[in-house]
Amino acid sequence: MDTMKAGLLAILAATPFAMAQDAAAPAYRSQAEILAASPDAHWRTPDPANLLVMELPAGRVVIELAPAFAPQHIANIRTLAHEHFWDDTRIYRVQDNFVVQFGDPAASDEARAKPLGTARRHLPAEFTRAASGLPFTPLPDADAWAPQAGFVDGFPVARDPAADKAWLVHCYGTVGAGRENADDSSRGDELYAIIGHAPRRLDANLSVVGRVLQGMALLSAMPRGTGPRGGYATPAEHTPIHAIRLASEMPAQARPQLQVLRTESATFGELVESLRWRTDAFYKRPTSRVEVCDVAVPVR
Amino acid sequence: MDTMKAGLLAILAATPFAMAQDAAAPAYRSQAEILAASPDAHWRTPDPANLLVMELPAGRVVIELAPAFAPQHIANIRTLAHEHFWDDTRIYRVQDNFVVQFGDPAASDEARAKPLGTARRHLPAEFTRAASGLPFTPLPDADAWAPQAGFVDGFPVARDPAADKAWLVHCYGTVGAGRENADDSSRGDELYAIIGHAPRRLDANLSVVGRVLQGMALLSAMPRGTGPRGGYATPAEHTPIHAIRLASEMPAQARPQLQVLRTESATFGELVESLRWRTDAFYKRPTSRVEVCDVAVPVR
Repeated sequence: MDTMKAGLLAILAATPFAMAQDAAAPAYRSQAEILAASPDAHWRTPDPANLLVMELPAGRVVIELAPAFAPQHIANIRTLAHEHFWDDTRIYRVQDNFVVQFGDPAASDEARAKPLGTARRHLPAEFTRAASGLPFTPLPDADAWAPQAGFVDGFPVARDPAADKAWLVHCYGTVGAGRENADDSSRGDELYAIIGHAPRRLDANLSVVGRVLQGMALLSAMPRGTGPRGGYATPAEHTPIHAIRLASEMPAQARPQLQVLRTESATFGELVESLRWRTDAFYKRPTSRVEVCDVAVPVR
Repeated sequence: MDTMKAGLLAILAATPFAMAQDAAAPAYRSQAEILAASPDAHWRTPDPANLLVMELPAGRVVIELAPAFAPQHIANIRTLAHEHFWDDTRIYRVQDNFVVQFGDPAASDEARAKPLGTARRHLPAEFTRAASGLPFTPLPDADAWAPQAGFVDGFPVARDPAADKAWLVHCYGTVGAGRENADDSSRGDELYAIIGHAPRRLDANLSVVGRVLQGMALLSAMPRGTGPRGGYATPAEHTPIHAIRLASEMPAQARPQLQVLRTESATFGELVESLRWRTDAFYKRPTSRVEVCDVAVPVR
């Protein structure tokens, strides 16, 4: 972000709304207008080794992995994808306003569980990491759940500078590794995606591995399970997963062609301010704030 | 809530977590255990004149209206239901992580719009009301969007005591009256229900009329519209609404038999504390807070 822009944003952030509506406020541009005007340099192409491509009967879901936050889980996920562990597994849990969960429905039954192949059977919990060294773009408003919230490479992140800790935030579309009660019981074979109001209570309580870039509506519109915790009453209700592959292991022409807006770019900064101020004609009471889970980082 | 309990909760609210885990913390009970032990007096039966019953092909959605907050909109909604305005209308918009909207798909086209009957064509905006006189149960934690957040008669509510204003909060399941850009352009004939992360930016920007008590998953699992703002590309994709009736105008045996936990009861207070502290075996990093939209007020 250039210095003048950063200065203006800092002034806006510190200015009561009635004043900001005066000459200091920039002309309103919609999200679509801001993105249409963005230079290509403000977008990045995800590393194909970080793209997990899930093939469902209704289409494709693309997840971007965040190895900076859960390296050991993501190494295991890459092994599982490479060895085709998820071929013919299932989406077996859809809990309304909470999660879609998928993998081997028999995972908790040792006698019937699908073998993990060469993937590790035990991983450390990767709930938080050091905050130092992360290219963190903070949001200007206070977060209700953490000392700071913002973005790292397109992922929603919370940070505690005093404790030098950072962690991926549970927003709509966040993907994490399911576990039992033991903190180190996740292995990356059972994954969940958030399909409801951000359950921030889960932050730093599970190993989060990434977020959905494309196909979210295929997950969020699935019929809800009627059993306990959104499990389906019968296996016939499960949705089959044809396959999950790393984009890096797919033929080039079959790979998803996606770009993510750089969250350290001036375009993203303007987008956040647009979401904060909402000076378009619809809003009668501008909010003058935004939460980390209000910001869907653009994908094109 | 009895005095001792209220005192304990006040101590907990003011106590850093490491201390509260000591002798002062009550034994953990799950939400199910708390509700199972609740006396009948802690539940209320909604007034049938405040229950809107929507009949969809897949089943029934029940909305509780909040006339204390939007009396003129709700008077209009009662007229529209009484005159069967919504018979054979449509769910015409399902925008992922945002809203389901329903009513007459041709409402904005004067030549084709369905007549409103004796319902009023113009209503004042009912975005906020006086805070005075409301039986408000505050949450102990700070809200990111308003000076206070809590509950009134089972509805999520924000409050600004200095301005003597209160308003219904946009949480998952909140129902409001759609409008055009003019603040007084909603009439209650076009309604929306929130199906994603709480869009708190809408608070006090629209006239909110109630919340879904039952059948939420019928709305949240609908296929997403692929047109602008989640509109469906073709009318064939709309979901037909067979009818919307007031429970008070249905035969007694057909009415929904629902009760809502009283948000001023000690049971609700214990439930909130249970959600705040999460001392069960799964949580490794208790959150020690809860947001108003994290609390789904129980319905039985």
